[in-house]
Amino acid sequence: MLGVRNIEWVGDAAEGHLRLLDQTRLPAAQAHLDCRDVQSVWDAIKRLSVRGAPAIGITAAYGCVLAVQGARDEAAARTALKAASDHLAASRPTAVNLFWALERMGRVSPCTPAALLAEARRIHEEDAAMCHRIGEHALTLLERVAARGGDGPGVLTHCNAGALATGGIGTATAGMYLARERNLPLRVFADETRPLLQGSRLTAFELGAADIDVTLICDDMAAHVMRERRIDLVMTGADRIAGNGDVANKIGTYNLAVLARHHGIPFYVAAPSSTFDLSIASGDEIPIEQRAAEEITEGFGTRTAPPRVKTYSPAFDVTPAALVDAIVTERGIIEPVNAEQIHRILRPMAEATRNAQAPG
Amino acid sequence: MLGVRNIEWVGDAAEGHLRLLDQTRLPAAQAHLDCRDVQSVWDAIKRLSVRGAPAIGITAAYGCVLAVQGARDEAAARTALKAASDHLAASRPTAVNLFWALERMGRVSPCTPAALLAEARRIHEEDAAMCHRIGEHALTLLERVAARGGDGPGVLTHCNAGALATGGIGTATAGMYLARERNLPLRVFADETRPLLQGSRLTAFELGAADIDVTLICDDMAAHVMRERRIDLVMTGADRIAGNGDVANKIGTYNLAVLARHHGIPFYVAAPSSTFDLSIASGDEIPIEQRAAEEITEGFGTRTAPPRVKTYSPAFDVTPAALVDAIVTERGIIEPVNAEQIHRILRPMAEATRNAQAPG
Repeated sequence: MLGVRNIEWVGDAAEGHLRLLDQTRLPAAQAHLDCRDVQSVWDAIKRLSVRGAPAIGITAAYGCVLAVQGARDEAAARTALKAASDHLAASRPTAVNLFWALERMGRVSPCTPAALLAEARRIHEEDAAMCHRIGEHALTLLERVAARGGDGPGVLTHCNAGALATGGIGTATAGMYLARERNLPLRVFADETRPLLQGSRLTAFELGAADIDVTLICDDMAAHVMRERRIDLVMTGADRIAGNGDVANKIGTYNLAVLARHHGIPFYVAAPSSTFDLSIASGDEIPIEQRAAEEITEGFGTRTAPPRVKTYSPAFDVTPAALVDAIVTERGIIEPVNAEQIHRILRPMAEATRNAQAPG
Repeated sequence: MLGVRNIEWVGDAAEGHLRLLDQTRLPAAQAHLDCRDVQSVWDAIKRLSVRGAPAIGITAAYGCVLAVQGARDEAAARTALKAASDHLAASRPTAVNLFWALERMGRVSPCTPAALLAEARRIHEEDAAMCHRIGEHALTLLERVAARGGDGPGVLTHCNAGALATGGIGTATAGMYLARERNLPLRVFADETRPLLQGSRLTAFELGAADIDVTLICDDMAAHVMRERRIDLVMTGADRIAGNGDVANKIGTYNLAVLARHHGIPFYVAAPSSTFDLSIASGDEIPIEQRAAEEITEGFGTRTAPPRVKTYSPAFDVTPAALVDAIVTERGIIEPVNAEQIHRILRPMAEATRNAQAPG
């Protein structure tokens, strides 16, 4: 298996349990969390032992199996599942994948541990397959650069859109895992990603664990590393993509897009097609959440700023489509990034939805 | 007095002592270090209680006064001064201002506490005056922006080229202190400046202490803050400036120069004329020191990266002259930045040196 094993069902449906890599312990320790009841799954999601929208959905799906273990009949199981689902939905109330996964688990019949485990595994495998398809497309972009010769492409990434956030090999990282598997030389640079250091704590950890050549830098070193010609392309994930291709992602992404353009380096985004929000015409409509001052001033147990200093801490930024050279989805590569190309790639999905809903 | 009092002589020449703001305790505590002998001054420089080239030179000069207190005659004082000077020179062997100040103290006659204290005070005051002249020139740039209206210029700075590093109001910060003194509205944004967080620990502290409106951001937020039109100009210091105007400064400076150009925001550098190294034609000749991995991986007092992760940590970067809109010196503003304009501003200095050396 490629990458870290962040979510795993151990044992059979009737008596098995869910094992999570406890991400709050990274990078100091690779500790596992064994969840044998719904409450421990709720706790794990709540305290960010598992994070990333797809990973949270998958975790909740497995949590539904735990809910019905030991139920004396199907009616009791159905009642237990409903209670568990309502409870788990409240663990991270803004996580769309969470509700989607719980709703899908609620439709399973018969309501038995075996049937629920089969569905949870399908959700898990579908996500892994989607990551893999993104990786295949991303790999063509890496190969484009590799074809130019040299000692393999240098790829800069930001934050963690990796295996730890998904049920597979991640989104921004997917091409990196496939390149490693196929022995395509590759050098990854990971921005540490202040304030929460996901690049340092998570991306550098998971790529290192997969034996991918990764080098950690501070966010303010990116321009210098580009000027030294160590970077051939930038690849990040996305939280939300508007109809015109504007990309909202972790704060610092827009920084890299501007720097990449200045240095003539392509800037790519990798994300599942579900990341597109066609209800918004442009990134201007995306409100920017502000984070707590303490994440900057006492980020890791030490106060590093004067008392009562004012801070400004946007959680993410918006990169205009004009700075994005391509968006890699599981359905193909959107390139150039504009409404027409987005429509071309996403259309089969829209049509499939229409056909499925058509009477017949 | 404007700004923090980082270096101060307390009492008279014969029995007084040197008081330093202990910068290793910032920003958690404003603690002072009372140095009553040469060894304690040596320790303070060595352990970075005082830092910044001008501040180190001034501190060593005061240290020379301590060396001769209590000497029974001038011959004994001269011997003690020579020993102290040799010792202090070894505290930070790469600090040019340190040697320059010690040499100047060695030429003082008579070799008495009073004469040495007078010379140390001159060195201190000359540095303060130089900062002030830089500030007057920088202020004209701030006023240019202020003239456009709005709620006062937004200035972004990086690292600490501030009062804490000098005997006065700093270099990059000098215009900010004068703007505050003259009630020119001003909003400063300080990059925290990873890995060593000088922006967070030092710049945010000293500007806040002077009642200047300062907001702390992470380095990867700069582009977003510029896109939101919160920044009207960028002002940083410099470690070394080549003959063509290429600027070597703390890592992350080049980042800001690229981002400023993309957003149409002027990028300024403030530095004394002594920062120019006309022996090098361009920034390409400046070797880039690499820093220890631990500054990135355990910078916040706790390990935030996986064990044995590879890091890349350049101590500074080089901003090409083409991205620098002006360099502010105590002799005037170099604008545009090119060899000819540099020569025009620095020439009087070169001529003065020649005249002083001419036989007559």
